[in-house]
Amino acid sequence: MRDVGFDSVHIDAVGNVVGRYEGATPDAKTLLTGSHYDTVRNGGKYDGRLGIFVPIACVRELKRQNRRLPFAFEVVGFAEEEGQRYKATFLGSGALIGHFDARWLDQKDADGITMREAMQHAGLNEADIPKIQRDPARYLGFVEVHIEQGPVLTELDLPLGIVTSINGSVRYVGEVIGMASHAGTTPMDRRRDAAAAVAELILYTEQRAAKDGDSVGTVGMLEVPSGSINVVPGRCKFSLDLRAPNNAQRDALATDVVNALKDICERRGVRYELEETMRAAAAPSAPAWQQRWEKAVDALGIPLFRMPSGAGHDAMKLHEVMPQAMLFVRGINSGISHNPLESSTNDDIQLSVRAFQLLLDNLAAEQAH
Amino acid sequence: MRDVGFDSVHIDAVGNVVGRYEGATPDAKTLLTGSHYDTVRNGGKYDGRLGIFVPIACVRELKRQNRRLPFAFEVVGFAEEEGQRYKATFLGSGALIGHFDARWLDQKDADGITMREAMQHAGLNEADIPKIQRDPARYLGFVEVHIEQGPVLTELDLPLGIVTSINGSVRYVGEVIGMASHAGTTPMDRRRDAAAAVAELILYTEQRAAKDGDSVGTVGMLEVPSGSINVVPGRCKFSLDLRAPNNAQRDALATDVVNALKDICERRGVRYELEETMRAAAAPSAPAWQQRWEKAVDALGIPLFRMPSGAGHDAMKLHEVMPQAMLFVRGINSGISHNPLESSTNDDIQLSVRAFQLLLDNLAAEQAH
Repeated sequence: MRDVGFDSVHIDAVGNVVGRYEGATPDAKTLLTGSHYDTVRNGGKYDGRLGIFVPIACVRELKRQNRRLPFAFEVVGFAEEEGQRYKATFLGSGALIGHFDARWLDQKDADGITMREAMQHAGLNEADIPKIQRDPARYLGFVEVHIEQGPVLTELDLPLGIVTSINGSVRYVGEVIGMASHAGTTPMDRRRDAAAAVAELILYTEQRAAKDGDSVGTVGMLEVPSGSINVVPGRCKFSLDLRAPNNAQRDALATDVVNALKDICERRGVRYELEETMRAAAAPSAPAWQQRWEKAVDALGIPLFRMPSGAGHDAMKLHEVMPQAMLFVRGINSGISHNPLESSTNDDIQLSVRAFQLLLDNLAAEQAH
Repeated sequence: MRDVGFDSVHIDAVGNVVGRYEGATPDAKTLLTGSHYDTVRNGGKYDGRLGIFVPIACVRELKRQNRRLPFAFEVVGFAEEEGQRYKATFLGSGALIGHFDARWLDQKDADGITMREAMQHAGLNEADIPKIQRDPARYLGFVEVHIEQGPVLTELDLPLGIVTSINGSVRYVGEVIGMASHAGTTPMDRRRDAAAAVAELILYTEQRAAKDGDSVGTVGMLEVPSGSINVVPGRCKFSLDLRAPNNAQRDALATDVVNALKDICERRGVRYELEETMRAAAAPSAPAWQQRWEKAVDALGIPLFRMPSGAGHDAMKLHEVMPQAMLFVRGINSGISHNPLESSTNDDIQLSVRAFQLLLDNLAAEQAH
């Protein structure tokens, strides 16, 4: 950031790296952008960091032209979006909207080091964290560039995608309880097979989510505890992860899936337990900001493709206090992410830089009017 | 056996308890019966032992009447049918047909005690084991009374069931390999979900086995290894246990299930591995001996109900050298077995004694002709 000509660069109290390129006038509002600089263990190079480097490239070009926009431009490398070391996802972006929970400081990592100790070791001052909360009135909005982390753009042969919404999600862990019995002596019509009930749930979830087109539903954890080859499963544990571009669609999906579980279990004479473990609101893109991305992508001659984001992003946190919209960049290797195979191409990344520049230009033109 | 008046009682070289009640003439052939006196850890009182005590009760009554049949009657309490302490199921009944594998003697139990040491400690002489092999020409056949170990007779409100066949079985362990991917960013139509493929297999197996009426199919082991709530399953391990009253029906079932797995995996773009771990031939009842049980049960005024045996029994071993047929006795508590809750009633057991007496009477009448 210093090399390319940001006016100020610092590491804030929670560990975010913040660079500002000031506007033409001191009282100008600020456009906020950025993404996270942490990633998962054994992850890729692009998840998060692409959304920091693309706006840095834009500032480099602005500085080279010695050009000032009618708004300030603030680029943040967010700390700890993934929540890998501590159970505190969106630590950095959350702090910008006042969502830092002081109880997190006592959490220990796998080596027994508390977050407080880790922050002190990094030279951060926890007492200053509340001070980094932003005043939304001073901001125009938040935009974020991110690698897609999925196969859609690759399969459509498109370099860029317009994010319509960051999906809302709900997660459950559950168990079906049937009756363990002898696999040889229990006729098919007298079984209370817990795993067969969960099998029905898996296929129902798959079909029901597909019906929406843009919902997703996953049974990622599945186990017959202490199962034996010759015993009809008496118990089957499972998880459910349901996501949709808006809360109403997510809730309708969840209602149908939970009702299906209820019906399946009643019909099969088994019972179930189900615990909701997470519920995150959808973050639909602000229409005006989504349209700004669309205008930029369209100007590049790239067909517009609108898509929800299945994964969560820092933009979800900023969404709570200001308008936001995201741009996705195609990943190669079928969009694999959280994996060293994660990658993109220079051409696609360059297109995202040009789209960002066009968004800045158009926004500048809007502000001039 | 000594108390009720057997002519000879001894423990043979493999640990079977053998009692003989001689026939009217020294050259008479022998009817063989019995069941196992071992059971599983934390098992019930009836599995196996019922089939020893019922013919003992018959001999008590014969002795009380001082009556000799035109055939000898040999009752065996078989050692180690379950194969719990050592991996040697049907140890006792197998030895009667010459199926004792000397390599088993070196197997160690959980405490490190070899079967040889355990036999010596019990006063058995392993060198004599080959001598206990029976000459089938000296035997009329083998009959066995056993608790059902299933819910069928309870649900039909019938005390006794005629076994048509001891089911043949085939077992597999397998794994479906798909592609692990992000549960949020992978659209439903681009997934290669290993667990969903196995879910289809579970439901297909259930329906296909039910179609036969008397086949059974079970996926008893099921696991997504290291599954995560937010990851589409890339792998799913499972087992398959398929059983049918005859080998052709079992093989048709297995062919259909394995073909279904192949089709499911092709359609879903996943692959599978499947290993056959066991294959046991069916032991259909000898028609003449099944009819003898039917005649006896019918004479008691009990509706005839014919059913396959889903579990294996000592009769499977004797089946290899002589005709055999079994009689099932209703268990209470939904037929639960291998569990201390396993039980039956005095009334039902008395009916099985009377059925056995009628079988002996009818067989005596046949022999007299």
